[in-house]
Amino acid sequence: MAAAAIAASLLFYHNTHSAANAESPLISTTSKPTIRLADVKAHGEDSDEKWVIKGTKVYDITDWVSAHPGGEVILRAVGGTIDKYWDIFSIHKKQDVYDILESYYIGDLDPQDLVNGQVPSDDIDDPFQSDPKRDPRLLVHSDRPCNAESPPECLDTFITPNDSFYVRNHLWVPDYTTNSPNSTAAKPSRDKYTLHIELHDGTEVDYTVEDLKRNFEPVTITATLQCSGNRRKHMSDAARPTTGLPWSIGAISTSTFTGCRLRDVLAHAGFPVDDYPEDEVKHAQFMGAEAYGASIPIEKAVAKRGDVLLVYEMGGKPLPRDHGYPLRALVPGHVAARSVKWLKSIVLSDEESSSQWQQRDYKCFGPNVGKDGVDWEGAPAIQEMPVQSAITAVKEVDASNSKDANLDGEAVQVEGYAFSGGGRKIIRVDVSADDGRTWHQAELLKNETKGYKSWAWTRWKWTVPRTVAEAGERFVVKAVDEVYNTQPERYEPQWNFRGNLTSGWHRVEYPKRRKEKGGVGGASQG
Amino acid sequence: MAAAAIAASLLFYHNTHSAANAESPLISTTSKPTIRLADVKAHGEDSDEKWVIKGTKVYDITDWVSAHPGGEVILRAVGGTIDKYWDIFSIHKKQDVYDILESYYIGDLDPQDLVNGQVPSDDIDDPFQSDPKRDPRLLVHSDRPCNAESPPECLDTFITPNDSFYVRNHLWVPDYTTNSPNSTAAKPSRDKYTLHIELHDGTEVDYTVEDLKRNFEPVTITATLQCSGNRRKHMSDAARPTTGLPWSIGAISTSTFTGCRLRDVLAHAGFPVDDYPEDEVKHAQFMGAEAYGASIPIEKAVAKRGDVLLVYEMGGKPLPRDHGYPLRALVPGHVAARSVKWLKSIVLSDEESSSQWQQRDYKCFGPNVGKDGVDWEGAPAIQEMPVQSAITAVKEVDASNSKDANLDGEAVQVEGYAFSGGGRKIIRVDVSADDGRTWHQAELLKNETKGYKSWAWTRWKWTVPRTVAEAGERFVVKAVDEVYNTQPERYEPQWNFRGNLTSGWHRVEYPKRRKEKGGVGGASQG
Repeated sequence: MAAAAIAASLLFYHNTHSAANAESPLISTTSKPTIRLADVKAHGEDSDEKWVIKGTKVYDITDWVSAHPGGEVILRAVGGTIDKYWDIFSIHKKQDVYDILESYYIGDLDPQDLVNGQVPSDDIDDPFQSDPKRDPRLLVHSDRPCNAESPPECLDTFITPNDSFYVRNHLWVPDYTTNSPNSTAAKPSRDKYTLHIELHDGTEVDYTVEDLKRNFEPVTITATLQCSGNRRKHMSDAARPTTGLPWSIGAISTSTFTGCRLRDVLAHAGFPVDDYPEDEVKHAQFMGAEAYGASIPIEKAVAKRGDVLLVYEMGGKPLPRDHGYPLRALVPGHVAARSVKWLKSIVLSDEESSSQWQQRDYKCFGPNVGKDGVDWEGAPAIQEMPVQSAITAVKEVDASNSKDANLDGEAVQVEGYAFSGGGRKIIRVDVSADDGRTWHQAELLKNETKGYKSWAWTRWKWTVPRTVAEAGERFVVKAVDEVYNTQPERYEPQWNFRGNLTSGWHRVEYPKRRKEKGGVGGASQG
Repeated sequence: MAAAAIAASLLFYHNTHSAANAESPLISTTSKPTIRLADVKAHGEDSDEKWVIKGTKVYDITDWVSAHPGGEVILRAVGGTIDKYWDIFSIHKKQDVYDILESYYIGDLDPQDLVNGQVPSDDIDDPFQSDPKRDPRLLVHSDRPCNAESPPECLDTFITPNDSFYVRNHLWVPDYTTNSPNSTAAKPSRDKYTLHIELHDGTEVDYTVEDLKRNFEPVTITATLQCSGNRRKHMSDAARPTTGLPWSIGAISTSTFTGCRLRDVLAHAGFPVDDYPEDEVKHAQFMGAEAYGASIPIEKAVAKRGDVLLVYEMGGKPLPRDHGYPLRALVPGHVAARSVKWLKSIVLSDEESSSQWQQRDYKCFGPNVGKDGVDWEGAPAIQEMPVQSAITAVKEVDASNSKDANLDGEAVQVEGYAFSGGGRKIIRVDVSADDGRTWHQAELLKNETKGYKSWAWTRWKWTVPRTVAEAGERFVVKAVDEVYNTQPERYEPQWNFRGNLTSGWHRVEYPKRRKEKGGVGGASQG
């Protein structure tokens, strides 16, 4: 089994290995020697024997590395502690996985190397130690892994600058910034980066980023990436609590992305993109260097007008580290979770990715379904997204020179974005100053989009006399896409325990009005 | 200009011709002779001179026939009165059209042929005289043209029988049932039926139905056709009045359709289906024999997985007359208005069809936009449809032998359909017995579908103990499709003056409960 295929089976790790493990000999933990911490450090990636520490116990996992369902990522932990990795990959926290580890037990750390009975914190490997520095304006929901949304003041342009583009990492940021003769799992050499492709017939082809730049026509498209958790906070606040990070309106951003077409690369690798065996190939599985995985339907992967790219530039600059340097997938119109970053392998298969991010995290269930006893297979993995919109700013403006006859003095300008999945164009944005009792149409701004379909958000604005804003209640927005789908009015009927794809009408108080009523400043969501 | 192209410009008739008409000589209506009715009848389709009556005035329109924007359909009226046709094609009721007609005035009917000063009713041609007989169970909203919905008791199967499939005709039903040496516009000969195709480069090719059957692989798909007015009554009743027929839940039906792929036929005609000039060809325009016209995007017309067919069989039988015999387009996933019946021509163009059914009738505007002063170009013609669902039956059933532990006696079974456009599969149907306060998931029935995507509705059912039904309020349904779009909760925020694409949650009283409250029997919509 090739490394990528092993990695793709991460989710079923404990199921497939528990039976074999039941036959492992029982290991006594009392008769083993003590081991110095320096000895463990000497058994790292470059050693023939690979040791890890969990708690204060030492394990020789040399024989396990090649069978590790998570792939070579395990090498990041050898020569040190694995506790922090197991915290991230919580799937390890099952008895049968502990049993596997226990079968490799070789001894305990020497107490003279411990502080208060534990490995000194300086000696514990931090998986996130190579993460890049980030723009302080980003609103950070979690630091390790980094999950940070674009603040409202950075959501006011069609193209989001790279520095303020929202960051949604599931794990650490692989570091391919330097060339090094001593390439390690934690700091791999840029020279040695390749994208590995496996076709359904077993064909395997590797491409360097230079290969991709040299051999394939560069294509630039504009695309909006949106996390399925965007606006989750609104659902949790207005309906019921959900699991997941409390993203507000900023888990969405737009950029120009340059790369080559996945369709072209697959064709070059030998895949019959217009005439493939449909029973054998149904999905393109993507694996990231940090062990994240996801898949998309093969129809999208090879569609002439699908604009699925292998991206090496973003916003006209080299892809930032947080966004997948040196290479990421871009699956426009689909939830951002499918645009796998630090892309290391693509496997064409009759099955979806078996990762938790395909099989579990990115799905929605009914408002009556809680997190216990979920029929995970009963809902499809989110791919294309439903129609969405939000208010990003409420500004006081001088409209005394406006061409609009309704405006002749102080006015309030409401701005925002609207977006739909699958390249479905936004055709109308309805706005209200009185909490949805009466409606108007916002002006849709004409921004230059690139690509076969409407892969990017539509920015809009609406200006009303200040007297109207003051007389009204909350501002509300709802959008309509080209197939005339629209957004749900309330959050409760759309509630799902993961809080995914929140798209209830976005309502925002007019701050001036609220102040008069004794509230605090700043727009809030109700 | 070929006939099809002329016909396609019907909408702009008066604009393009009014300037020329301004130069027409003024005709005095006082110096003309009287004409016998028999003389007019002798100047019909087979005569070199073609006369028509409007009111009691006679016109020789021989020179106009070839320039008539509506095409050869005008021949149906020659030798008789045109009043009924002008009632149908209300676009004629403009001063500049009257002016054109007046320029062809040749005299007045002889008073001795009139009854009470009018043409005797027996002598007035009825455009609908050849319409077929219909199943009396259909719920008729208008007879001429026929608009009749499938009654709830005929909406309980996955495949709707041909006889109870809803009928939505814009005009009369062309009659191609017989072969006749004396083919007329009102009763054209089956022998002489051809489909005329015009490509962007001027290539013209004609196909008989036999040509299509003989030369192209037959394909069968299951597809749901839905009128954009389906459920309009619910919007009008619950929100505000709309224009258009008050369809309830039955302007939707499903069948198997057999024909050949439009893609294959266009390729045979010489169109480069995978490599056409995208600036020159953007739409496939369809024209029916009765002068109805519409268009679809060329991408859909030639998509390998688009399943657009030229259909000659429905439900395993020859296409019924009401549904387009001998040939119709089938554009699965799109509003039924694009699946043009009695298909006479296909024109590939850089423009949409200019018919009123493309440019006006099948669009939606905001809830604040009334029928006056509409910016018709401000909204796209409806093509793919949003997600939809409805309750078709509420039945009392004996559940004493049910495998469901919740059911052990009298129960109520709620049934219905759910459907989404674009081939987007229905993944979940949420149902409620208490007006939406709590939800459950209905069972999605596994019906055999044929075709690349989910072109057919999903039937569902939900069984609850009768005590639950009696304790609750209204039954409610809402559906979710594979891109997780869902339906609006209320009708008012989706209201549009045409009442198109009504998809608010369908709510139905439990009749038993309502009777107790003094209401009348039968399910109603609130």
